[in-house]
Amino acid sequence: MKLNILFGGTSFEHEISIVSAITLKEKLSGFDLNFIFCDQDHIFYLIDPLKMRANTFSKGEHKKMPQLGLTNGAFVQKTLFSRKTYSATVLNLIHGADGEDGTIAALLDFFGIDYIGPRVDASVFSYDKRYTKYLCEARGIKSVAYEVLAANEHKDLKTPYPLIIKPARLGSSIGVSIVRDEAQLDYALDSGFEYDSVILVEPFIEGVKEYNVAGFMAEGKMYFSIVEEPQKNEFLDFEKKYMDFSRSEQVLKADISSELEAKLKANFEKIYTNLFEGALIRCDFFVVNGDVLLNEINPIPGSMANYLFEDFKGSIEMLSRSLPKTKKAKTSYEYIHSISSAKGK
Amino acid sequence: MKLNILFGGTSFEHEISIVSAITLKEKLSGFDLNFIFCDQDHIFYLIDPLKMRANTFSKGEHKKMPQLGLTNGAFVQKTLFSRKTYSATVLNLIHGADGEDGTIAALLDFFGIDYIGPRVDASVFSYDKRYTKYLCEARGIKSVAYEVLAANEHKDLKTPYPLIIKPARLGSSIGVSIVRDEAQLDYALDSGFEYDSVILVEPFIEGVKEYNVAGFMAEGKMYFSIVEEPQKNEFLDFEKKYMDFSRSEQVLKADISSELEAKLKANFEKIYTNLFEGALIRCDFFVVNGDVLLNEINPIPGSMANYLFEDFKGSIEMLSRSLPKTKKAKTSYEYIHSISSAKGK
Repeated sequence: MKLNILFGGTSFEHEISIVSAITLKEKLSGFDLNFIFCDQDHIFYLIDPLKMRANTFSKGEHKKMPQLGLTNGAFVQKTLFSRKTYSATVLNLIHGADGEDGTIAALLDFFGIDYIGPRVDASVFSYDKRYTKYLCEARGIKSVAYEVLAANEHKDLKTPYPLIIKPARLGSSIGVSIVRDEAQLDYALDSGFEYDSVILVEPFIEGVKEYNVAGFMAEGKMYFSIVEEPQKNEFLDFEKKYMDFSRSEQVLKADISSELEAKLKANFEKIYTNLFEGALIRCDFFVVNGDVLLNEINPIPGSMANYLFEDFKGSIEMLSRSLPKTKKAKTSYEYIHSISSAKGK
Repeated sequence: MKLNILFGGTSFEHEISIVSAITLKEKLSGFDLNFIFCDQDHIFYLIDPLKMRANTFSKGEHKKMPQLGLTNGAFVQKTLFSRKTYSATVLNLIHGADGEDGTIAALLDFFGIDYIGPRVDASVFSYDKRYTKYLCEARGIKSVAYEVLAANEHKDLKTPYPLIIKPARLGSSIGVSIVRDEAQLDYALDSGFEYDSVILVEPFIEGVKEYNVAGFMAEGKMYFSIVEEPQKNEFLDFEKKYMDFSRSEQVLKADISSELEAKLKANFEKIYTNLFEGALIRCDFFVVNGDVLLNEINPIPGSMANYLFEDFKGSIEMLSRSLPKTKKAKTSYEYIHSISSAKGK
């Protein structure tokens, strides 16, 4: 099948997206793939598949490759004498800003290009951790207690130590700190506010059980990956996570009861349904005293969480046949006509 | 001051946006305005200001005018021998889909064009009435009780009669019905589902007091319009509302206590702050037994609610000097470099 892998973007996770795309080149071998790179200035390049190596981008070699623009239904390569379109379904693989905040989704919606990835509303609810909390409250999904702190705000935190500081709108553990006592707080806040003007403060739960599960909806039915219990140091730092984005070996299923597995999947479905259709997402859960708490939604997980799926290629094919179609509103001029005739002009 | 008025869009409110733009041409006379029309196929046209009449569009005369594209920082008009850019601040005046659902916001964000209007997240929370309810819950703002019903769903409604049916994602009273008893229900549901696959059901409150107030933030301070008590029939039907979009005469202040006025403004500020910055919005409130309930957020009100402001031109100027600047994430290749050198390549 044909797919245009869209990666890069103006984001702190720019490099990670490149690593994800290189990994998918391997995992989707046999597919007819084009690689479309969005550079930090929002210029699109068509990347030679043989040059899909990390240093192509770090050395700026992509700048010698053809630029692409957008037109209704496709990416387009224009020269003085020719015009070639790339209209295959896009796999949005831009992690972080641009890709996960709804920008790319809206761009593809506007130009009527089919894509695998979260729609605009799903992006807003997963990108900003505050809005993920709103979603949990509204849909009756448990999550960790939290406080919101803005950069210019002075207030006493109510969260007991140890606590964890997270920029509201960043993934991949960037700007995240665990704070064990008040002496560590100011430095952690400064690090967080380097990346965002809003941070979330949550209690840090020592030794919490963590489980990840990925999934998607196709033909009206949910498909789940295996449940993984991720290995952890205290928590994943950015460099460790970075290596994670290049994961391609299938992992072992977590050793959990079928009851807990069912609970995790039921929570996943509650989050996914009527919001994330069209996307393959990974949800990271905590289990505390038998309660399942949502920790994070990854609407474009690193290398599409390929390592959690027994049949990753089959999953992508299934999903790409079930993408939401936008019902385009029909515009009309009936009121203008009726009002013009009432006015006699 | 210079402004590019962007109007039209692929939306049921396409016509209304044209009426709004024509009204603003009059209300912002003296400004240096360009008019950029987005047609139903998402093609942009630069409209001759002398042709800013409703029938220019209903007759398709805009198709003879120059097409515009998007480039970093501006709309652009390209011919074989020239390239002219339009880089002034955009006033997003596309009502309904495209303009209010986050699509246009993301497009302008992506191309780095400054604009007056809701950002992507603010759009998602105001466009879909379900998400407006989530926002109210999360921010402690009262609103009318509601149930959600999907097109393929069969469930007994708990809302008592009379009730009101609203498509989740449409404004301007399109697809809205008041239902007095069960006999009227099926027809009302069918009308609602013509426009959206999800509808909201709310109790219809007879003779409720309704108040509208518009406002915006500039230089860190809230500016409010006068509070209006809108005239109503039973409720505004589409044709009546349509005429409303061409309103340009200033209205009278509602005769309310300063206490109620303060309450309305406090609720407005709770909704606006940390979400709607960059936009001039109108909030429509109900007052029931002294309680202020949010009915609806209009993130791009008809003709920008000019008729509620004593100094409309001054307000637009102030707002345009206080637009949010996106902090562009800096991309780097430090991890790719460090990993490449660790691998010895």
